[in-house]
This record gives sequence, C-alpha cells and structure tokens, in this order.
Amino acid sequence: MSNEIYVLRIGHRIERDKRVTTHVGLVARAFGVKGIFFVNTEREIKEKIDEVTKFWGGPFKTEIIEENWHKFVIDWKREKGIIVHLTMYGLPVDQKIEEIRKKEERKLIIVGAEKVPMGLYKISDYNISITSQPHSEIAALAIFLDRFYMGKEISLRFSGAKMNIIPTERGKKIIES
Amino acid sequence: MSNEIYVLRIGHRIERDKRVTTHVGLVARAFGVKGIFFVNTEREIKEKIDEVTKFWGGPFKTEIIEENWHKFVIDWKREKGIIVHLTMYGLPVDQKIEEIRKKEERKLIIVGAEKVPMGLYKISDYNISITSQPHSEIAALAIFLDRFYMGKEISLRFSGAKMNIIPTERGKKIIES
Repeated sequence: MSNEIYVLRIGHRIERDKRVTTHVGLVARAFGVKGIFFVNTEREIKEKIDEVTKFWGGPFKTEIIEENWHKFVIDWKREKGIIVHLTMYGLPVDQKIEEIRKKEERKLIIVGAEKVPMGLYKISDYNISITSQPHSEIAALAIFLDRFYMGKEISLRFSGAKMNIIPTERGKKIIES
Repeated sequence: MSNEIYVLRIGHRIERDKRVTTHVGLVARAFGVKGIFFVNTEREIKEKIDEVTKFWGGPFKTEIIEENWHKFVIDWKREKGIIVHLTMYGLPVDQKIEEIRKKEERKLIIVGAEKVPMGLYKISDYNISITSQPHSEIAALAIFLDRFYMGKEISLRFSGAKMNIIPTERGKKIIES
C-alpha cells in the first residue's frame, strides 16, 4: 500500500506540451506508477499511452480530469492521501525520500509545466526538488521514482505484454508472447 | 578526465521536438555534463539553453553541428573517445555503469528521438538501456547521469550564477549574487 503512487500532470498547454506530457505519462508507467491523471489534455495523449500499455504490458491507469484540479487535490487529501509536488524550489529529494517512503498513505506526485500557482506549495505535504536547477519535469519525475523505489523499478516486469525486449549488446532482440 | 561527458542529440525534428530537445539540453547541463551538440536544430533552442547558463551558472557548452553526425561520431572515436548510445534495446545501465565509469576516455552520450539508424548500434561502444520499456530520452539521460555520477550531480554548484535557489519547505527562496 505504501508504495502506491499516482501522478497528476497539471499546467499542460494544448499542442505545445503534447510531447512533454506524453513523456511524463510514459515515464510514470515505465517507472512503476499505478496511474496518471491528466488535466484538460488532448485525448490522443491518453490514447497513445493506453496503446503502449496494451502493447508493452501493464497495469497502468490513465484518466483525463476535466474538473478543476484544485478540487481533485483537496479530495485526495480528504481521503488521507499524501501530496508530493516536484519543484526546483523544494527540499532536496535525498533529504526527504526516506520519510516519504515510510508514509503508509497513497501518494499523488504533482508534476507541473512551467509555472504553478503558489497555493500548490501550501497544500502539498512535500515540495521536493531534484536539483535546484531548471531542467525538466520528465527528468525530475524519473529521478524521484528511482529514489523512491530504490532503483528497483528499472527491472520491473509488466503483465500481458505482447512484446518483450531481450537486452543485448548490439542491435535489437524482441520476443513476442 | 574520466568523468568528462558530452551529449550528442540526434534525430531532432524541427518544431515537433522543440521542447523535448530543450529538456535534453537542460538536463545535460543540470546533471553535470560539459556540453551538448545538437544536429540541425533551431537556433532558439541553443539560445534558450545559453540563457539558462548565463542566469543559473555554468560552464556549459552548446553547439549546433550542421554536418552529418556520423562523421562527428567517427571523429570522436578516432580521437579515442567512448560512445555510449542510450536505447531501450541495450544492456541494463546497472550492468555496465561501473565499467563505463572506469574508462579514462571522454564520453559521448548519444540521445536519439524515436528511431535511429542500425549503424549506430554497431559503432557505439555501449548500447545502454534505462529499463527495456518505451519512455523518454530525457528520463533515460537523467538516470544514466545519476548512475554515472553516483547521485552527486544532484547537489552540483555552478559558477557565475546570477540567481541561486535556497531549498525550502514551502514557497520560493531565491538569492541574487
């Protein structure tokens, strides 16, 4: 229960952030997250990720929420979930990750595009930075999850995959199942 | 010398990959890479990253190469550099990272967009995967560098920064220097 993580992607800008938001979703899936919630996002992004899950295995839940994400976050807290907001202004991940890992509650990791409202810093249980430098919410999410799962997500197995890759020194080895 | 890393970003598609390629550059800088080479990329991407370096510190080198990147890679090898190609088909990072870290030579990490030519798998000294799942070259680069630098890049200090963030539990603390 305590390692049950969901991601909430906020601040998506139609068209402009299409590929970045898709990468956020794919990283969430590949690194062991249970599911992702998109806010006001193109349907094709959800479909693209569902396709990957169908092909490469799951389970991985995707959902577009149309409502105000503030309400979503408040409901999450009301149901005793923990909010972790990834931001370059927060406390270093290595300082807080053990504490977060120990929490029994479900965790919602919030990943924003460029700017997020100040209220989010207040409502979050943790504001966590992956370096205090500007870089990428995709990288931040990957490093956070890698720290949280202590590197184990890297060899995660997925159920119902149609294809599996056999790691190889040179070239591509794929087996169908 | 042995931890001198450069990144080569290939397969960039004008307009479509603008933000993803920018993220690749920002991650390279934030995670301790010496510089990045872009191939046939919009000038504004290089400028955007140079601006970040001016503001948040460096050093970090950016260069757009117009030539065929194959020639660039061959020259790199001729000058006794090592090529590491990040791909979901490669050997797991944890299996090879120590060996790569021990190499005295300069390293070129190649990060491609969707498909790369088969020749690259052959010319690379290492084809390395960060999970064998489809996700993001941005996340792959971040995890590779994190493993390579053993998590130390997370608290890297940059020279000549105009602004520095003081990590904080809630809100934003910035000091000008």
